[in-house]
Amino acid sequence: MAALLDAAADPGYGASVVAVGADRPGAGGLDSARQAGVETFTVPFADYSDRGQWNAALSDSLAAYRPDLVVSAGFMRLLGAEVLERHTVVNIHPALLPAFPGAHAVRDALAYGVKVTGATVHLVDSGVDTGPVVDQVAVRVEPGDDAAALHERIKGVERRMLVDVVGRMAREGWSVQDRQVRLGASGSEPSTSTPTEYVAEENP
Amino acid sequence: MAALLDAAADPGYGASVVAVGADRPGAGGLDSARQAGVETFTVPFADYSDRGQWNAALSDSLAAYRPDLVVSAGFMRLLGAEVLERHTVVNIHPALLPAFPGAHAVRDALAYGVKVTGATVHLVDSGVDTGPVVDQVAVRVEPGDDAAALHERIKGVERRMLVDVVGRMAREGWSVQDRQVRLGASGSEPSTSTPTEYVAEENP
Repeated sequence: MAALLDAAADPGYGASVVAVGADRPGAGGLDSARQAGVETFTVPFADYSDRGQWNAALSDSLAAYRPDLVVSAGFMRLLGAEVLERHTVVNIHPALLPAFPGAHAVRDALAYGVKVTGATVHLVDSGVDTGPVVDQVAVRVEPGDDAAALHERIKGVERRMLVDVVGRMAREGWSVQDRQVRLGASGSEPSTSTPTEYVAEENP
Repeated sequence: MAALLDAAADPGYGASVVAVGADRPGAGGLDSARQAGVETFTVPFADYSDRGQWNAALSDSLAAYRPDLVVSAGFMRLLGAEVLERHTVVNIHPALLPAFPGAHAVRDALAYGVKVTGATVHLVDSGVDTGPVVDQVAVRVEPGDDAAALHERIKGVERRMLVDVVGRMAREGWSVQDRQVRLGASGSEPSTSTPTEYVAEENP
C-alpha cells in the first residue's frame, strides 16, 4: 500500500490513489494515506448486522470515489457480490495460484516442500483466490527458509509487482476472456480517471 | 533421456546410466540407449495378466541392474508398491506441482490463465504427481503461447534440470524428511555406484 502511494506521487506513473479505506479506524494504511494527503474512509464490519449490509455499505463508499480499480492490499475479508458486481477488484496473494490459496499460503508452500513459490495479482471473484490471474512472479525457496524469511522475500516481490501491474492497468487498460487477462494494446481503452486503492489491514 | 545419456558420457558427471528400459519394444528411448552403448530391456505391459504382476516383473528387471536411482522420463504408467518399495524413482512433470498434476499439465495451466508455470522433479510415491519435490524451475507464459509452444520451452528447462538434479543426487546424496528433500552435504552418503535410468515413452 505504501509502495503504491509512493509510486502514485509521481505524475508519470499515470494512476493516482483517490482514497484509502479500511474496515476499522486503526488500520495502519490509513495513517500512510493521510501523510500522503490521500482521503481515507472506514466501513467498520461491526457497525452492520450482516455481511450483505456491510458489503453494500462498502460498495457505496467505494463508488463515491468513482475508482477505475479497487486494490485489496492485506484485506482479509471475503468481498460479496454487492462490491464485486460494481467494481473491478485486484488482490495480491503470496503464492503462485492455483497452488496454495487461502490465508496460510506461505506456511502451506513450505510444508509441501516446494522449491519455487511466488506471488500472484488476480482479479477478485466470488471464490477464495480463484479469480483470473493478472500477473505472477516466481520466488525461490532457499535452504533454511522459515515462513517469516520466505514471506519477507515474497512481500518485496509483491510490492514491485503491484506497482507495476496497477500502473499498467491504469495506463493501458485490460481485457479478460476465458480467464486470460491481457494488459496493454489488446486490452480495453485506457482509463482516463484514477484508481481508488481500498485497503484494510486486519493484522497490521 | 537423450540429455542424460549425453551428460553421463562425461566421466566428470559422476553418474552413469546402467540401463534404459521401456514398457514396449518400439519405445524411442531404446534406440538412443543402444547408440550410446547402454543396455536396454523391456517389460511389456501386455505380457502380464494384471498390474501387480507387471509391476513385480518391472521391479525385478530394475533390481538386476542394482541402480541407485530410477529416472522416469516420459513414462506414463502409474508405478505400484512392487517398484516403489524397492527403488527410489524420480519423475519430471511439466508444471510447478502441486499445481496442475496429471497428464494434461501444460494445457490445464494455459486454461487457468497462469502467467508463470514450470517444471518439477519429484520423488515418485503412490499418488499422481504427489511425491516430495526435489527441484523446480519457473517458466514464464508468454502472450500468444499455445500448449505446443509452451511445452517446448518447458521441455528445454526439464532437460537441464534433470541432468543437474540426477548428477547432484548421484554425486552428493539426498535426504527426505517431512517432504523436505535436501541434496548435498546434509543428505545421505554419496552413492558410489551408478543410477539406472528406466524410461518408457508411450507417446514417442
